Parts: sequence; structure tokens; C-alpha cells
Amino acid sequence: MTWEADMVVSANNDRYVVGVDYGTLSGRALVVRVSDGTEAGTAVHEYRHGVMDRELAATGERLPPDWALQDPSDYLAVLRIAVPAAVQCAGIDPAAVIGVATDFTACTVLPATADGTPLCMLPGLEGRPHAYPKLWKHHAAQPHADRINALAHERKEPWIARYGGKVSSEWQYAKALQLLEEDPELYVRADRWIEAADWIIWQLTGAETRNACTAGYKGIWQDGHYPSRDFLAALDPDFADFAADKLDHPVSALGTQAGTLTAEAAEWTGLPEGIAVAVGNVDAHVTAPAARAVEPGQMVVIMGTSTCHVMNSADLAEIPGMCGAVDGGIIAGKWGYEAGQSSVGDIFAWFTTNAVPGSYREEAANRGISVHDLLTEEAAAQPAGAHGLVALDWFGGNRSVLVDHHLSGAIAGLTLATRPGEIYRALLESTAFGTRVIIEAFESARLAVTELIVAGGLVKNDLLMQIYADVMRRPLSVLGSDQGPALGSAIHAAVAAGAYPDVPAAAQAMGKVKRDVYHPDPASADIYDELYAEYVTLHDYFGRGGNEVMHRLRALRDRVLGAHAGDDPDDGDTTSAALDDVTGAS
Amino acid sequence: MTWEADMVVSANNDRYVVGVDYGTLSGRALVVRVSDGTEAGTAVHEYRHGVMDRELAATGERLPPDWALQDPSDYLAVLRIAVPAAVQCAGIDPAAVIGVATDFTACTVLPATADGTPLCMLPGLEGRPHAYPKLWKHHAAQPHADRINALAHERKEPWIARYGGKVSSEWQYAKALQLLEEDPELYVRADRWIEAADWIIWQLTGAETRNACTAGYKGIWQDGHYPSRDFLAALDPDFADFAADKLDHPVSALGTQAGTLTAEAAEWTGLPEGIAVAVGNVDAHVTAPAARAVEPGQMVVIMGTSTCHVMNSADLAEIPGMCGAVDGGIIAGKWGYEAGQSSVGDIFAWFTTNAVPGSYREEAANRGISVHDLLTEEAAAQPAGAHGLVALDWFGGNRSVLVDHHLSGAIAGLTLATRPGEIYRALLESTAFGTRVIIEAFESARLAVTELIVAGGLVKNDLLMQIYADVMRRPLSVLGSDQGPALGSAIHAAVAAGAYPDVPAAAQAMGKVKRDVYHPDPASADIYDELYAEYVTLHDYFGRGGNEVMHRLRALRDRVLGAHAGDDPDDGDTTSAALDDVTGAS
Repeated sequence: MTWEADMVVSANNDRYVVGVDYGTLSGRALVVRVSDGTEAGTAVHEYRHGVMDRELAATGERLPPDWALQDPSDYLAVLRIAVPAAVQCAGIDPAAVIGVATDFTACTVLPATADGTPLCMLPGLEGRPHAYPKLWKHHAAQPHADRINALAHERKEPWIARYGGKVSSEWQYAKALQLLEEDPELYVRADRWIEAADWIIWQLTGAETRNACTAGYKGIWQDGHYPSRDFLAALDPDFADFAADKLDHPVSALGTQAGTLTAEAAEWTGLPEGIAVAVGNVDAHVTAPAARAVEPGQMVVIMGTSTCHVMNSADLAEIPGMCGAVDGGIIAGKWGYEAGQSSVGDIFAWFTTNAVPGSYREEAANRGISVHDLLTEEAAAQPAGAHGLVALDWFGGNRSVLVDHHLSGAIAGLTLATRPGEIYRALLESTAFGTRVIIEAFESARLAVTELIVAGGLVKNDLLMQIYADVMRRPLSVLGSDQGPALGSAIHAAVAAGAYPDVPAAAQAMGKVKRDVYHPDPASADIYDELYAEYVTLHDYFGRGGNEVMHRLRALRDRVLGAHAGDDPDDGDTTSAALDDVTGAS
Repeated sequence: MTWEADMVVSANNDRYVVGVDYGTLSGRALVVRVSDGTEAGTAVHEYRHGVMDRELAATGERLPPDWALQDPSDYLAVLRIAVPAAVQCAGIDPAAVIGVATDFTACTVLPATADGTPLCMLPGLEGRPHAYPKLWKHHAAQPHADRINALAHERKEPWIARYGGKVSSEWQYAKALQLLEEDPELYVRADRWIEAADWIIWQLTGAETRNACTAGYKGIWQDGHYPSRDFLAALDPDFADFAADKLDHPVSALGTQAGTLTAEAAEWTGLPEGIAVAVGNVDAHVTAPAARAVEPGQMVVIMGTSTCHVMNSADLAEIPGMCGAVDGGIIAGKWGYEAGQSSVGDIFAWFTTNAVPGSYREEAANRGISVHDLLTEEAAAQPAGAHGLVALDWFGGNRSVLVDHHLSGAIAGLTLATRPGEIYRALLESTAFGTRVIIEAFESARLAVTELIVAGGLVKNDLLMQIYADVMRRPLSVLGSDQGPALGSAIHAAVAAGAYPDVPAAAQAMGKVKRDVYHPDPASADIYDELYAEYVTLHDYFGRGGNEVMHRLRALRDRVLGAHAGDDPDDGDTTSAALDDVTGAS
């Protein structure tokens, strides 16, 4: 490296960047000092339309089950409201801002004209649901995803292995196929099918770009191309040219400059016209550099309602159950791996809402603590193994090595003496075992995991963190900011502005990590080795065909309720769910 | 049958009997008209000393874990207080009472002198815990039971198969062996080791008797003799003569007359001196004639905190997991079978106490219903199979066909959408599946089950009853009295008094049953066939060696807690637990 750090730091002392993190319900702007990552000010703007999952705001039309739309005007409002507010909060001169970058939920994708206008903003189309952005958790394209997966395996498409054998109903193809088949006129009018992550950059710069992260993880862009015309035609003849017509565009590496801030966007944001704007990015992935996790083997575990695991590697390996392996998907020049657990914090929330007696709520209220705190206290009072329980963490299915959304949760070992805090602890542990399965999958593929860095809303739970350290028998480092994604975006802004030569260098200066915050306790780790062995036995029994009871129970449920079996509200999860907790006011 | 029913009915119109049911916490007297079983009056007396499971009342001495003692003066108080009160409540002339009979929890057993004086009533012994009656749920003799079982299998004792391969720590031998080894001086001073069921008859008649029910089910009296001197000597040389010295006595058939009421007992009870007193009996077994279930194939399912299944048969069969098969154990001249489920109502109570959110309690309170009612309402709103769950009902172990108290409960199929009422329903269903396993075990041994008659506190739950009818695909009859055991005792009193030639005849006249109250719904029954198949698969996987995880979890728990593995508070259950709910104010 020829770059002279000291000189740059000195030059960057009075320079700032803005990172904007677009979550599910709000957008956050964070003003960060370029030299050292100091977080100078922040502001949040809640989307006026939130998530449209019951009715279309423009008309009041009722939406079908499992739909989830957004209004792109809300994204623009974040630029107009949250960005200036953050700058004001920071008390800096806007002229000191040298760059801006964003991260977004994904796959959140919309149809647009050739000039980037969302179809829903065209006169006469505001009443057409398919004209709006489909949020990551729009799950109504499951039948389309099922067809894509079946065909990919039938044709032995090489890319399917990069996604753990299964692409999600949330991704670009399933959602586009739904558009084509349910509103073909709008499909034709959509010159572009574009991630919101890229669309927002288009608004800031006036230039269309496509970032490597969403192209790879959500757009099946592998080895320099999209799925073949033959494949798409086999799905639907009218879909043959989908990728060529509506997706194809040069793909930009993360951290590169997409363009400069237009006069219009400068007016919205109050930032200087002409400053650098980085290419788009995704909330989970952008968190890695915020935690200085840019080297191979540094795994960032982002724990919220669900958990994402992101890690770089010099090598390509096909690992069962990956959400995706993408060249430059996290850091340019390295293979980025994303894995995940469908539900983590979701399970704990389900438990406190549905399975904790009122006496706990009363005691927690009297003591001014949360029910989670009280359960944690009860759970922490016992040593590992004392509850005699083992649980499977598949309350939201399994999108880890089994890639099976029709699995479900289980608990064994219950007695008449079992207490709520004990079940709670068993559920905490089950999610740690789930992460250990993922780490072992990486290591089985000869991708060594050398450091674990935890992030996200659940990091606040000391007991949970200690359990993870013990179950993994590794120390845990902790991301040093509550605003991981926005900080990660700010790092990319600094690189796009030329303040650092690359993202690793910027991450080194601006990222924040506390090393070895939690240390494994050898005695607990020994006990967890025993419990993990029990977990794996049950995992394989229920998840690998030993007993297909969970599938049969679900099929029976659907049959009894007369439900559409492919139309599954429990199905699918994305990185965004995990990130909501990071960015939210948890 | 040569007996002329009409004449007897006429003669019995103005004649009464008293049945006394000794439960765990109280005794109940019931005055019943001999001709038709009309319940004329009843009264309950709560034991002043209750269950001594923490300290000995006489000294305040702390008792070890798992002890449970009673004070026999409480049993006498029931005669002095509840019996006269019941007669007064009935508004009859005490001179109209022609007989009295009792039933008791079992195995509740005490050391006594040759004249029937409990050792704890001897001067100077009131401070010795081992001098008191050991209540059925005294579980501190588990190590002794373990030795008895191991030796019985080692020596291939023929009687062990009559008890499903395992005798309980609650029974006469384990408790006596504990006495011998922990307080040998008292063991020597105990001329008799006698069931409270027989001891109370001794107090009423002045004559020692031993009834066929407790001798068979709790005393291992089979084919006319107790376990051999060799066997007992192998347990402990000083135990060699235990049966010969302290148990042996002619065994009396149920329904026969033990003697007549002494002047002293007449004074206690206000009943006429010289009236007939039946031999002792046990609460579960005596319920069968109360439900007119005296013929082979009529199974009475007594559902309370746990469930007992009692049934007569002309034939002897060795059925896995029976609590016992005893000649004349329910009705003289027939083989009496007792099977059971360790926990049933206990599981539902655990659930409402430990796993139901406060909002349910509030709503139930606002509507003036119980939490059970509210959960039942929520559960009943869905068709069978809609919850997608299956549970194993082993929260208190399994004393059914697996005879394994170290098993535990499990639930599979949980999702983030699972509601408390759904889990509650899955737990209700799991106990029905447990009963179906028992019925199938009977039928596999060629003992046809021709009618199911339900009794006990849980009969009040319509949803539970309908689930049982659907799971068993059979109509359910219901015992027609809330005081099944006391009514059953009254029937025995009438027979002992000569008002009827035998218990079946008296049961026909005085017993009460509503036939075919619940009818199986064929559509639900079809779904339950599917769910039962899932239950059986998991039952065999977790219970028959497919995966010993439950044993390992329990062993780990005991190791971690440093607990004495043989000293298990969850272990063992008896008929009495089930009956508490029948006789209690549930």
C-alpha cells in the first residue's frame, strides 16, 4: 500500500461524509467525520406510507395476501428531511461534506421508465399495484419462485449452487415474473426493473448504475452474466428478454463513484452540488466494513429479528444453504458470502408475546425492566444444561444449510417443573446452535472463520452474547456503533470521494470494533458441545428426511384451512429483517 | 341370577349406606340410598395436617426432599366430623344406615403394632418421621425401588410382568425397605406394615383385614402369595421375613364384609353399632362400579391431574406398561387391569401457569371465565389439524406402555404464527393420543375394549371430551356422579350389608352412567388418524431408543445441578393424583 495514512488523516479532520440507511419503515442519515469515523449527527425520517401490505394508499384498494409495497416518494423525503436534519444535528458546515452513500433493504425492486421514473409516478398509473416498488417482504411471488427453482434444477443451471440450491421469492426474477403474468401491460411499459438501492443513486446523480451487491445476490448476476435467454424463455416465452431488456447495465464495484450530486439533489439535501455519490449497497453487507471486517475469515453476524452472516474470502466455494456467494458482493475483489437464519429475535419476541405469564410482565413493570430482561435474569441464574431442554430454531423455517422454509420449531425435554426462563434460554441457545451449523458449513468448505464480530439489536443482551461465545467456543468482537449500516455507507462515501484508496483502508480508519468483548467459558463450552450434538441429531432427524413430520403437519394445516400451499406467509426472510433491529430504536 | 330385583328395590327404598372417600387433602362422606343410588347428602373434612412434605408437625423438624407423610388422626377426624355431617345434610335417621365402606389413596402405608396402633401414636415416637404413614406421593424410596426392579429382572421373577416390568417407588416394598435401612429400630417395632385403606377398616371394625385391591396392586400379591423369602433376603438379609411377618394375612375379596361397626366407631360416626363394614378399597378402582363398569371390556378413564384406566377382564394377559393386573383387583372373580398416564390435567395446569400471556388472564377475568375456558374457546374455533402441531404428553414421564419416568414432553411444528390456544389444543390432543396407545396395547393383547366411560374433573371440558371421542373414534359414556369414588364405596357398603348379592348387581342399581354422550366426528377422526400416526412415530423415536436425547438431557441436568440422579422429584404418580380432581372442589 503506497498511501500515506497520516497525511490523509490530517486532511480529513474537517471533512465529513453522509451515509443514508434505508430500512423497512424509515430512513436514517448519519454524518461521519472522514478522518476517524466520529459520528457527528444523525436523523431519522419515518416513511409516510410505511409498508403498504393491506391497501394501496392512492386508492384504498385492498391488496391480496402477502403483498408488500412502498411509495418511492418516501425515499425522496428521507433525502429532503433526514439528511439536512442530520447535518444540522452535527453542527457542521454542509460545505464540509465531501460525499454521500446509501444502503437499502433488498430485494426491494421497482418498474421504471428509461429515464428512471417509477411507473407508479406516471399519471394514470397510481392506482395499479404492480406499478409500485415491491418491498423485500412482498411474498406473493412464491409460486413463481417455485417454478424458477424447479426449472433451474431441471436444467442444472450452474448458478443455482451459488444460492444454496434455491432462489427466493423475494428476488428480482420471481417478482418480475409475477408482474409479467399479472399485469403484462405494465411489464411492457417497464423499461427498467431496478433495485431501489440503485434507483435512489439514479435520483442523486442523474445516472443509472447497477451495484455488484444487489446484482449478485438478488439479480443472479454470476461470472459476468445473468441467467440465459433460454432459461428465461422456458419460464415464460414473454420473459425471454427480461434480463437483456430491463436489467442489463454495466455492474459497478462497491465503493466506486456512481456520479456526483446533481443540482436538484443538492437542493433536496442541502449538500454541495458535485460531491461524490457512491454506487448503491445493501444494509447487511455494508455493515461489514463498519465493523472493519474486510479480510477473509472475518465473519460479521448481524443479529436482529433474523440473523445475517456475511464474510469475505479470496476463494469461491459452494456451501450448502448459502443465501449467496457473489464476487465483490461485500468488498470489491473478494468473494462475498451471505448466510442467514430466518428467525432469531423474532423467536424471542414470539415467546414473550405468546408464552410468558402475566406475572412476569407485572414484575418487569414493577422493576422498570423489560420482560426480556426479566427472562434473561431468570435464565442466567442457572448454569448451562440445567434446564434439560433442547430446541430447534426453525419457527420461521430454515434458510441455513437446509434451505427449507417449511420446517418449523420444536422443543424437547419439557417437564412439569420447566419454567419460562428455562424455555427462553433454550430458545436463545437454539439460535446459537443454528449459527454454529453455519460456521461449520463454512469450515467444511475450507473457508476458515477466524473472527466473529457481532452486530445488531440483540448485541445488547449479555447472556445471549455469552451463550454465543460459549457455543462457538470463540471470543466475540462487537461492532462499535449502534448505526452499523449508516456508518458502512459513510465509509463507502469516503472512498467514492477519494478520501481513501479503497473500502478496506477507509474501514480501518472509520470502522469501529471492540475486540474480544466476550470470552468463552470452557466449562459451559463443554456442556454446549453436548447440547449441540443433541441439536444436530434433531436437526438432521427433522430436517434431512429422518422424519418429514414438519412437512406433513404443515401440509395438513394448509389442507384443513383450505389454504394455498404455495402461498405461504411464513415463507422467506431477508437481510432487511435483521437490519430493522439495527437501525430501529431498539 | 336368582335374585329378585323388584323385591330388593322395594325393601331398600328407605335404607341408606355411607361411602367415605379418603383423598390426599380431605375425606368426603356420601350418604346414598340403597335402592337407586340417590345421593342424599355429603360432607367434606380437610385434614388438619394436610400433607407433611416440608416438616414434621409434631416437632417442626425439616423433612428431606421428596418425603410426604400424613397423620392418621386426620383419618379418624373424617369419621367423627364428615360422616355425621353428611347424615345430617341428608336429613335421614341414622338408624336407616345399614352399612359403611371406604376407599383410600394408595399406596399410602403405615407401620403399626399388632393391635393396629400406628407407631407415630406411641408415646415417644411422635418425633420420628418413619413412624408416620407414608403418603402415596412420598417419592424418597426411588433408590430402593430401583434395586427391587433390577433384582426382579435379574432373577426373572414371574410377577414383574404383571406390573408392566416395573414396580413403583410408591409401593409397599420400596417404602418398607427405606424404613428398614433408615430407621431399623422402628422397622423392628412395626408388627404390621399396612395400607391406610385397611387400617381405617381396622379402626371401624376392630378386626384386621387385607383387601384384594391394595394387596394385588401395591403389595405384589399374585397367585396367592407375596414375593419369595429368597427374593426379599437378596434385597437385604434383614428384609427376608418382611412379607411373612408384617404383611401376611388372609386377603378379602372386594365387597365382602370386613366386620361390623364397633361401639367406639358407632360413637365417632353416629351410625348404628353392628352395621356392616366392607373391606377396604382404592379410589380409582372403586369408581368402576360407580360407573356401572363391571363387565369385561368396559374401560373407565378417570381423568384428573393424571389419568387412570381401569377395566375388568375374564382373562389374564401380560400387557406392556400396565400399572398392574390383579385377580379380583376391581371386581371379585375378574382380572382387574389398571393403566395410567403420569400427567394429564397437570400438563394443562402447567401450561396455564407457565405459558399463557397475561392478556388471556385479563380477558378471562373480564368475562368471568377461567383461563382454561378461554383457551378452550380459542382452541375449539379451529378444526382438527389446523394448528400444525404435535406434542408428546410426557411432562411427568411415561407410566404407560414405555414405563419410563425419565422421558419428558416435546412439541413440534411451532411457527411465529402459533397461538397459545393452538398449543393448548395440541397438549389436549397429546393426552388423547396417550390414551389411544393404552387402548391399542389392551387390544393387541386380545383384551377388547368395548366401551369407554370417562370420569374425573376433566370431564367438564367439552372440547377435551370431543377430542377423545374423535381420537378414539368411539362414543364416550360419562360417569353420572361428581362423587364417583364415594358412590363406589357406598355400593360396596350395600353389598357388604347384604342388600345386593354382589357388586355388579349393586352397581346396576346404584351406579350412574350417561351412555354415548360424545360421538366421534368422522372427519375429525380421519385427521386424528394422521396426527396419531405422527405421535406414534415420535413416541417410538424418543421413547423406544431411536434417540435417547431425553435421558441424556435429564442426566446432564442432574449432573449440572449436582443432583442425586435416583432421587427424582418428577418420578412416579399414582391413581390418587387423578382422583384428587374427582373428589376435590374442581
